[in-house]
Amino acid sequence: MRVSVIGGSTIRRAEAETAEELGRVLARRDHTVVCGGLGGVMEAVCRGASEAGGHTIGILPTDRRADANEYVEEAIATGLGHARNALVVMNGDAVVAVDGGGGTLSELGYASVYDRPTAGLGTHDAAHVEAVQTVEKAVEYVESAVSGER
Amino acid sequence: MRVSVIGGSTIRRAEAETAEELGRVLARRDHTVVCGGLGGVMEAVCRGASEAGGHTIGILPTDRRADANEYVEEAIATGLGHARNALVVMNGDAVVAVDGGGGTLSELGYASVYDRPTAGLGTHDAAHVEAVQTVEKAVEYVESAVSGER
Amino acid sequence: MRVSVIGGSTIRRAEAETAEELGRVLARRDHTVVCGGLGGVMEAVCRGASEAGGHTIGILPTDRRADANEYVEEAIATGLGHARNALVVMNGDAVVAVDGGGGTLSELGYASVYDRPTAGLGTHDAAHVEAVQTVEKAVEYVESAVSGER
Amino acid sequence: MRVSVIGGSTIRRAEAETAEELGRVLARRDHTVVCGGLGGVMEAVCRGASEAGGHTIGILPTDRRADANEYVEEAIATGLGHARNALVVMNGDAVVAVDGGGGTLSELGYASVYDRPTAGLGTHDAAHVEAVQTVEKAVEYVESAVSGER
Repeated sequence: MRVSVIGGSTIRRAEAETAEELGRVLARRDHTVVCGGLGGVMEAVCRGASEAGGHTIGILPTDRRADANEYVEEAIATGLGHARNALVVMNGDAVVAVDGGGGTLSELGYASVYDRPTAGLGTHDAAHVEAVQTVEKAVEYVESAVSGER
Repeated sequence: MRVSVIGGSTIRRAEAETAEELGRVLARRDHTVVCGGLGGVMEAVCRGASEAGGHTIGILPTDRRADANEYVEEAIATGLGHARNALVVMNGDAVVAVDGGGGTLSELGYASVYDRPTAGLGTHDAAHVEAVQTVEKAVEYVESAVSGER
Repeated sequence: MRVSVIGGSTIRRAEAETAEELGRVLARRDHTVVCGGLGGVMEAVCRGASEAGGHTIGILPTDRRADANEYVEEAIATGLGHARNALVVMNGDAVVAVDGGGGTLSELGYASVYDRPTAGLGTHDAAHVEAVQTVEKAVEYVESAVSGER
Repeated sequence: MRVSVIGGSTIRRAEAETAEELGRVLARRDHTVVCGGLGGVMEAVCRGASEAGGHTIGILPTDRRADANEYVEEAIATGLGHARNALVVMNGDAVVAVDGGGGTLSELGYASVYDRPTAGLGTHDAAHVEAVQTVEKAVEYVESAVSGER
């Protein structure tokens, strides 16, 4: 399935390692990573997925594909600015959030609007977000939630 | 100034009364109401503002102006679906949230992204949202925050 | 009714005079001008409408209302870049085009998609565009087309 | 490179055959097809590309990936309605138009805005569109224009 990974664009080393590991685990389990295509969590998760041979889609706020980080395999330019956050969530079957600020909060809101199962690793609290402690738990949660509903 | 009022599209009587009073107070203090143009909090706040002679802008998710509630003075169609939530926030100088679900949460995220002072009346908790108990406190908060920064 | 006025953002004096006169005539006949909010034809038509006491709406590509020209009464920020061209057309009951390049051509396309009667003053040729020679003819055409269909 | 193929969503057999052949030729020459993801020219070009082992991206107006035609390999949902036309053009290095109505005209406008070399097979006339008679000429034109500018 496709998993939208959302999170901050400027992060510390610990969050980068979490996002990178998330990318590796998703890729090994044959999931495609969808993200916003830029830096921080977006770059780290794509790097992890790419190293593990996975597929990555980056949906950019700008109108230039060249703005994608180097680990994005399929870059989609939108020119929509922050309104593209809706598209990042809409294009996944489930969502995993790592850390994150206001942009991530808008995406968690969209996860509720579009009814996407959502796991959170050190991100905002919200009623529909399953807070988990490890990457493995996050992936298990979204796999189980998506298979259960279909 | 322009105040974006966000909140649920299906609400109970208590929230409708709060939103309607908010519309009246904003109008009496010469503020324009910006909202998503549909029902629930959006309709109630426009009704209140309209009764008090205020100006209301409704930024719709559909591509038909006719979808606006009857108290919207200036309807703007977008055809963007939920991505129009970014525009609702972007077009205010400040934000007041009343109740609300996932769509409102996405708008609170955008309020942080666009750095709009935000007051919350029975809405989601978030670090940048000033939780208040009354309509008057909400309006005082956003007036003070906007005048202070300018 | 609302008339979307589209055209180039960099224009010569003759086109500016045409757009300004168009704004005056639309305002005198109680029509609201909808445009893209920036310079060139957009600014000239708003200046004309404003001088004649008319109402003007500018739907901007940027996320800052302050980017609107000074004759826009109601500025709507979108942050959508050129995708906002769809909104400019969607928010009028009819379209008048003055001159214009690629952006205007995209808007003429949208005028066909949204089935808006369209008059053209020195603009691109297209099957659904009524080419006219004067501002008066342009306004007569869109008034007649809109009243005829309703 | 990526080639955006645009054209009508309801077409006759002759245009379908042209679009399908275009898809085959683009795929054989290792180009990715970008399109609007739905029926008509969009489906025919994806079918041709898919048969020849090529890669296809469909950028949909709806918010459901499932709305893509069956030959789209990478479906991107947008929920933007016709405003997604900007994204279809923006995501290609060049454009080929086959037939088409108002939506295609809006995309030809965007091709000018984003400065994408454009070949036309029985489509609208416009100054920046190179009218050609065969699929081979269309592909030669865009290949040459893109390589020449880089």
